[in-house]
Amino acid sequence: MNDMQEKIKEVAGGITAARGYLAAGIRSGCKNGKRDLALLYSQHPATAAGVFTQNKVKAHPLLLTRERVAKGSARAVVINSGNANACNGSGGMEDARKMTAEVSRLMGMEEESVVVASTGVIGQPMPMDKIISGIELAVNELSAGGGAEAAEAIMTTDTVIKETAVTVEMGGLQVTIGGMAKGSGMIHPNMATMLGFITTDAVVSPEALKAALGYAVERSFNMITVDGDTSTNDMVLVMANGAAGGPELNTDSKEFIVFQKALLKVCTRLAKMVARDGEGATKLLEVKVNNAGTEEDARLAAKAVASSSLVKSAIFGRDANWGRILCAVGYSGAEFDPQKVDIFIGAEQVARAGGALNFSEKNALQILAADEVVIAVDMKTGRFGATAWGCDLTYDYVKINADYRT
Amino acid sequence: MNDMQEKIKEVAGGITAARGYLAAGIRSGCKNGKRDLALLYSQHPATAAGVFTQNKVKAHPLLLTRERVAKGSARAVVINSGNANACNGSGGMEDARKMTAEVSRLMGMEEESVVVASTGVIGQPMPMDKIISGIELAVNELSAGGGAEAAEAIMTTDTVIKETAVTVEMGGLQVTIGGMAKGSGMIHPNMATMLGFITTDAVVSPEALKAALGYAVERSFNMITVDGDTSTNDMVLVMANGAAGGPELNTDSKEFIVFQKALLKVCTRLAKMVARDGEGATKLLEVKVNNAGTEEDARLAAKAVASSSLVKSAIFGRDANWGRILCAVGYSGAEFDPQKVDIFIGAEQVARAGGALNFSEKNALQILAADEVVIAVDMKTGRFGATAWGCDLTYDYVKINADYRT
Repeated sequence: MNDMQEKIKEVAGGITAARGYLAAGIRSGCKNGKRDLALLYSQHPATAAGVFTQNKVKAHPLLLTRERVAKGSARAVVINSGNANACNGSGGMEDARKMTAEVSRLMGMEEESVVVASTGVIGQPMPMDKIISGIELAVNELSAGGGAEAAEAIMTTDTVIKETAVTVEMGGLQVTIGGMAKGSGMIHPNMATMLGFITTDAVVSPEALKAALGYAVERSFNMITVDGDTSTNDMVLVMANGAAGGPELNTDSKEFIVFQKALLKVCTRLAKMVARDGEGATKLLEVKVNNAGTEEDARLAAKAVASSSLVKSAIFGRDANWGRILCAVGYSGAEFDPQKVDIFIGAEQVARAGGALNFSEKNALQILAADEVVIAVDMKTGRFGATAWGCDLTYDYVKINADYRT
Repeated sequence: MNDMQEKIKEVAGGITAARGYLAAGIRSGCKNGKRDLALLYSQHPATAAGVFTQNKVKAHPLLLTRERVAKGSARAVVINSGNANACNGSGGMEDARKMTAEVSRLMGMEEESVVVASTGVIGQPMPMDKIISGIELAVNELSAGGGAEAAEAIMTTDTVIKETAVTVEMGGLQVTIGGMAKGSGMIHPNMATMLGFITTDAVVSPEALKAALGYAVERSFNMITVDGDTSTNDMVLVMANGAAGGPELNTDSKEFIVFQKALLKVCTRLAKMVARDGEGATKLLEVKVNNAGTEEDARLAAKAVASSSLVKSAIFGRDANWGRILCAVGYSGAEFDPQKVDIFIGAEQVARAGGALNFSEKNALQILAADEVVIAVDMKTGRFGATAWGCDLTYDYVKINADYRT
């Protein structure tokens, strides 16, 4: 395990870190003069896979992209921020199609190989004139150094750009996987989360790419929560253009598990960035549940603690209120015996066997003052674990969401 | 139906409005000099029924009370606020028992007919000396006018006392039902909610009382939410002491449905008071879902909208952000067709057939400025409806919960 992980190295860059990808992030004029339109392009045909929101209300671009990615390939992604293009009637789907048609026309690609994502306000018509001229600008600005500007262009209430990349050695070849993501409200498990885009130069079959993405998302993006709201638009896409060369990776390839781990690392890093930058958040909350009876129990419990408004408020207030932690595990749906549970905040044990401990409030306060807080819950029932990430609940969350539209 | 409802009249008072009940609310010294211990006593033997939290972590007094109420009778209830007596190991159950034993000793009742409830901080040992001398004081202060002081003594972060009563004519006799409740954080469906105590002088069999309470709670307390956290301590108890006389009410009595409706009215009024007084709330949010395919779909959708942090923040900010409402219905688990849904904020229609409408932002702003906001969602699928209640999410919610313990 450790040998394997040592092969995975963090490197600079994001969506354009892997070979053969170009990106741009431009100002189309839809979002107060900020970058608001991103284009991602693979110089080679690429296999693709995606996971999509489970909300019954699905944005128009998401429906189009889901349909196209199902065929296992994609070569360009166009993304706008500021308008979600959701609940816009038949005009919404038409607009989503127009965006891909314009990329296709300008770049001379099949329209079917272009996909689209949107994020922003629901139920407002898309300003298509600006979007269409923005696409032309983006096509002209595509470059191998455009990753960071693309990551900036997909932000809404995000305060920082979110990009990361790793290299991994597979069968003697060096493969790169990079990605970008945006949060930062309406963040809750079940893909559900946000927008994430990942690129790799590995040679990967569509089936293997789909399997690896499912594995990674389940343990990363689906384990973060900001506010419990599952959005209409959210998706994670991965493209693999094979520019690194070598044999095609399948789910039964010896190297598949290495690729999957590297992809999980990229997804986890992006997911944690999203959680830490949750609307109004001042700190990252990591909740580890250990020794649960099943992996599902561990996940349910970890997500419930990370999602609890009472726990999140207490973390903001630096209050080691372990009763709220145990209470959240109690309503999570996980099977466990409350009288066995130990709870730790950082290195400080705050509850033993489901009851109070005479812990150091001073130590706890110090731990809670840091910008990352780890809560560990030992269920003492079985051997399964899971980790969830969230953030504190602050005045600013309310402020941001009280007047988002206006 | 209307004839039936006209028989139900609101009257003054709360837990002591019905004949044959005494109550007291005193200062035991556990909560900064505020009233913190309530005692409720029926002068006659009474049938009883209860519903209890679904949290796997259950407070000690709740376990004791659930066991005793299961036998169908209870005559006195002692309630303390400030300490939840939850997660306190074997000493917690011992303390809960001691509280009932002290009431039993002082009042010369069987210990089995005394039940107990607690609310407050989890995981701190009970200050039993103060509690025990408080019980003696409460016994001495019991009176038919003590309802309001009892309602005050069960408050934690509540800002107002919550009590209500109705009279209803049943078979030529006038019956009274009254109650009190406390909120106001950790409020979420599935009993789950808070503490509620209801008394009636009707003659009701234990089975009928249980059935009527289940019916009423499902449509009232289980339809409110403040923050999605389900507490370890919460319960609703009802006692019926028969002081009004007349034949015993059973589930097949002609008058049973009238009693059930009157009980629902008391529960709904208390539940709305709890929602309106949610921690930090500035307004009551009522979410009506109409024309759903099943009652369960209607309830899921109504609760999801009332629970959404994004909707709640928007209501605080007076923002008619209907996209968030439709989005919450979308992840609620309810079956529906997003393209059929109409949404109203007060009298203003803000979305039609799942899409935008050119509504009056000025009207919407005026509606959202009131201290009660009604959101109506017409699913246009079937004939079932449900109503949920919640409140807005404000800076003060965060403030209250950031330093509750300290």
